[in-house]
Amino acid sequence: MKHKLDKIVLLGAGNVATALAKALAKKHNIVQVYSRSNSSANKLAKIIKCSFTNKLSEITPDADLYIIAVTDDAVEKVASRLKLKNKKVIHTSGSIDKAVLKKISPNYGVVWPLQTFSKGSILKRKTPFVIDASTKQLASHLNELVEEMNGKPIHLNSEKKAKLHLAAVFANNFTNHLYGVAYDILKNEKIAFDVLLPLINETIEKIKEQDPRKIQTGPAIRGDKKTIKNQEAILSANPQYLELYKLLTKSIQLTTHAKKL
Amino acid sequence: MKHKLDKIVLLGAGNVATALAKALAKKHNIVQVYSRSNSSANKLAKIIKCSFTNKLSEITPDADLYIIAVTDDAVEKVASRLKLKNKKVIHTSGSIDKAVLKKISPNYGVVWPLQTFSKGSILKRKTPFVIDASTKQLASHLNELVEEMNGKPIHLNSEKKAKLHLAAVFANNFTNHLYGVAYDILKNEKIAFDVLLPLINETIEKIKEQDPRKIQTGPAIRGDKKTIKNQEAILSANPQYLELYKLLTKSIQLTTHAKKL
Repeated sequence: MKHKLDKIVLLGAGNVATALAKALAKKHNIVQVYSRSNSSANKLAKIIKCSFTNKLSEITPDADLYIIAVTDDAVEKVASRLKLKNKKVIHTSGSIDKAVLKKISPNYGVVWPLQTFSKGSILKRKTPFVIDASTKQLASHLNELVEEMNGKPIHLNSEKKAKLHLAAVFANNFTNHLYGVAYDILKNEKIAFDVLLPLINETIEKIKEQDPRKIQTGPAIRGDKKTIKNQEAILSANPQYLELYKLLTKSIQLTTHAKKL
Repeated sequence: MKHKLDKIVLLGAGNVATALAKALAKKHNIVQVYSRSNSSANKLAKIIKCSFTNKLSEITPDADLYIIAVTDDAVEKVASRLKLKNKKVIHTSGSIDKAVLKKISPNYGVVWPLQTFSKGSILKRKTPFVIDASTKQLASHLNELVEEMNGKPIHLNSEKKAKLHLAAVFANNFTNHLYGVAYDILKNEKIAFDVLLPLINETIEKIKEQDPRKIQTGPAIRGDKKTIKNQEAILSANPQYLELYKLLTKSIQLTTHAKKL
């Protein structure tokens, strides 16, 4: 049986596009790859064995699905220049609403993989994919598409998707920044960051099972004024880190206080 | 051959004390357990098969090493009431300087395990232990003690130990708070926190190999003003989270800017 989304055009040839292309090519027919860079388009097209272009005007009009998997910055620009009357078109960005595709076609949506892709990354099994589509039929087709890539489909409307993206910024981007602060503090002391990995791993193990707010530890939640004062003194030469320290300490204490009320 | 630190008195009967007791009892002779709570002392003493007390005045004076493994809040109080002329005495806290034990004996120090201990936790193999001792001889004995527990000894002076504790607050306590914020945002949307675990795990895998500042992603480092504005709008009803969002975003951008200069 032919897939409902058999013929696919892939716009993008970066890390996300390449990982999706490899996962999709097993069961779908990727007919064309577009990239602003002709050599990138060519490189990915060679892997998939399909045609390629670096001109949006040359995109074939008769595919079943168009996937815009370019960088977040470029989605709107690419979308604004696409003409695909009534075709199905999706993008893969967590930070962008599906509505940016509204003008292209009534059949538009998002399939957002919650995985970070580096060069050479392959799509991991059970990767959650947020699906948000303009029609029930498209949502159902995209659900099938995700399952065929061995992903885990999660259907969320635009509002909930935006909230999940915000949560991911806190849980992923912001925590990474704090690891960076820790790394910097240790680097100045010539202490290898490795020493913190067992603690970090334990925290991750715990939050798999419990509300993180219930396992909060440290000087802030203990109300350990002496340690907090000492640590602020250590940071006095670094206003950036001191401000982070003070606000995060205050926020932990606010949360605790709120829970106690 | 008898160990240099053969006879040990353990002060404390909580999660840390219990995990250490079990690890130490294999090669050392724990002669007495103290806890403010008689039943806690009794319970741990039964496991170790030793005597116990809930009175600091009844602590046996002829052991080789006294380990204060009470909660951080109680270390100074216990230390201030101990009289152990010339005996070796250590505590196990990351947040407290070894100097709080100075008045008890010239042989004082810290052995701080970088593991979080819950009820029933056992000491994991290769757990890093920070050692900070008042004499070279004690440092060498504590090194042996840590190795006998299958831990990984790390020798740091007081100043470096304090910096490591500060880094751990950023990498562990503060990140946990941010996971809590993410959890809260998702809970309000009835989205299971699980969906973020693949992303969180990937970040941890990456920081094992790279400076976290070099793998920073997200709207802040992209300078994605539109997404930042949208996310601030979502948080407008929650001043606590909004303030965190703004400061962390600013801090990521400051770090990036500093790197570019």
